[in-house]
Amino acid sequence: MSAVDDFNYDALPGRVVFGTGSARSLLLTELERLGAQRVLLIAAESELALAQELAAPLGARLAATFTGVRPHVPVAVAEQACAIALKARADVLLSVGGGSTTGTAKAIALELELPIVAVPTTYAGSEMTPVWGMTQAQRKSTGRSLAVLPKVVIYDPQLTLTLPAGVTGPSAMNAIAHCVEALYVPGANPITTLLAQRGIAALAQGAPQAFEHPDDIDARSLTLFGAYLAGSCFAAVGGGLHHKICHILGGALDLPHAETHAVVLPHVIAHFAPAIPAVMACLGAALRDGPSGEPAADDDVAGALHDLGRRLGTPAGLRAIGMTDEQLEAMIELVHAGAAGAEHPARVDEPAVRAILTGALAGDRPLRSPVAEAA
Amino acid sequence: MSAVDDFNYDALPGRVVFGTGSARSLLLTELERLGAQRVLLIAAESELALAQELAAPLGARLAATFTGVRPHVPVAVAEQACAIALKARADVLLSVGGGSTTGTAKAIALELELPIVAVPTTYAGSEMTPVWGMTQAQRKSTGRSLAVLPKVVIYDPQLTLTLPAGVTGPSAMNAIAHCVEALYVPGANPITTLLAQRGIAALAQGAPQAFEHPDDIDARSLTLFGAYLAGSCFAAVGGGLHHKICHILGGALDLPHAETHAVVLPHVIAHFAPAIPAVMACLGAALRDGPSGEPAADDDVAGALHDLGRRLGTPAGLRAIGMTDEQLEAMIELVHAGAAGAEHPARVDEPAVRAILTGALAGDRPLRSPVAEAA
Repeated sequence: MSAVDDFNYDALPGRVVFGTGSARSLLLTELERLGAQRVLLIAAESELALAQELAAPLGARLAATFTGVRPHVPVAVAEQACAIALKARADVLLSVGGGSTTGTAKAIALELELPIVAVPTTYAGSEMTPVWGMTQAQRKSTGRSLAVLPKVVIYDPQLTLTLPAGVTGPSAMNAIAHCVEALYVPGANPITTLLAQRGIAALAQGAPQAFEHPDDIDARSLTLFGAYLAGSCFAAVGGGLHHKICHILGGALDLPHAETHAVVLPHVIAHFAPAIPAVMACLGAALRDGPSGEPAADDDVAGALHDLGRRLGTPAGLRAIGMTDEQLEAMIELVHAGAAGAEHPARVDEPAVRAILTGALAGDRPLRSPVAEAA
Repeated sequence: MSAVDDFNYDALPGRVVFGTGSARSLLLTELERLGAQRVLLIAAESELALAQELAAPLGARLAATFTGVRPHVPVAVAEQACAIALKARADVLLSVGGGSTTGTAKAIALELELPIVAVPTTYAGSEMTPVWGMTQAQRKSTGRSLAVLPKVVIYDPQLTLTLPAGVTGPSAMNAIAHCVEALYVPGANPITTLLAQRGIAALAQGAPQAFEHPDDIDARSLTLFGAYLAGSCFAAVGGGLHHKICHILGGALDLPHAETHAVVLPHVIAHFAPAIPAVMACLGAALRDGPSGEPAADDDVAGALHDLGRRLGTPAGLRAIGMTDEQLEAMIELVHAGAAGAEHPARVDEPAVRAILTGALAGDRPLRSPVAEAA
């Protein structure tokens, strides 16, 4: 009989309402549960019509609308949004949109301590986390605060039916990356492991179908459910080497966020695989629930992730999204330095970083890696 | 592809520290994280020596100790404990013990809004819930409040090594009942279903071994982990018909709590089984991880629960713990009335209640129940 390994787990509070049509049928009820009298609606211009339609039942309780959403939440945008919230005497923030929209609501909540009701329209997962971020003069500051964690999240798969395939694929792989890293980061625990494994299975099954048939509501539902679990895992235990690499490459080379995640993940896993056989077995089992019907062999999990990425239309290599061969050496140096100091499941030395980044640049399918027997 | 069914899930906050020896090695650190300066220690007389040993590193920060713990938290006890907390100017409550001890800390927290650090020594699970209860003149009042939910729970399997087999068995079955009902109550959702299934598997594997070999630390660890999951599930979704029956019988006939749960559960499941084939498949799969190594057939899950109870030394029937044949008719009437108004997975009419209680009174192994194909 195997004992339960020692662990810590900090559970976060929050109400999740999940269901097709829920944004239309339940939003008012949820806002009323919070006693909302003066709601500030936050939405990007591109999603304003949808957001206004959803907020229509609020009537006079819709106090103001902010549409100046920008990527990475510039400080100036946050200040402007706060001023509007104050002027409107808002008592609840309602965000309808993707990560940048949720992020704008979080920036207001951080300053004014107002509760957020989030209605996500993508697979970003930010709505489940207490992490906020703002940028000023190209510098991004981030932090954790329970004040920015949405009080209620309404997941309505119907709102994701119009998500283009070119967004669906990479952002689903981004969500998978959140789940995968949750399996081996230092804070990994039996609860997040359960959620992560279920999340990977849901995404591996739902996302390819949602990619190929964007209006398949069952596939959208499964993929959104997986994205919710991915956000929950990331909120509880954070990211590891993979996220560090994506953060560094994204910042230095201005690569697209979700695509970078999709490309890098298999190569990080290929490096760690021999050191974490139990995690590979767990990950392989979750990928087994995927659409291929074929099991992912324990020594070919990295390859299976690569195949899944290709099936989701993500670029094979970083070259395809703008990184050049000339940038490789500088990136190896940056990542090697950036990875130091953190705890990893296997040694992350210069040759390891070189192998990971070289593989990710070219986008080759990772080789099978012999793994020890899972404990 | 099957969609995700609509659900709501209210996640509760809370920090869990799980590990053998953690109560000795990490208690001070956890109290310091909360900024504790004046700790009120709450423990029953029978566990005072252990509690004092654990609290020793606090030194002068141990402001007072309350040992007047009584079952069901009489209001007079709660008032006395509050007075001591006030006099000691306590800023943190530290409870070391089982459900009644945690309950006493909750009664103080409800009144004085002090944070609780709970160190459970049984499988009661109360430390994971925001439910409080107090009794006055034989009447029990209960309620839910986030104020009574412990901020930190330290699970140390070492503290359970001395739990007598006669407590281990019934209280593990009580924990299993929490998990089982979480699978079909109206608030059931995919998150609590994952936790419940894992909890049942852990308890079904760990508890029989812990019952037979009380000093097997791995078995104790697995059983305590299952009890933690059981408490989490109950906190999130509450109980169903089974809990209603146990509450009514316990209150009217003064039957022992955990034993009543152990006896009644298989008979409730036998009644619901044909109506919830997917739940039976899920429950059967969890019991498959049990010690017998043999799978629990979908149509024999109630019988497998009965067998598990017997293996854990719980009485076969309610007769063995004090209920008489003469009390049966009155109890059928009470339960039938008490079950009305709630949502159940199958009709709970008078014949159904009669079948459940007659079976529980005698303690026969439930018959196999034909189930439809799981959806």
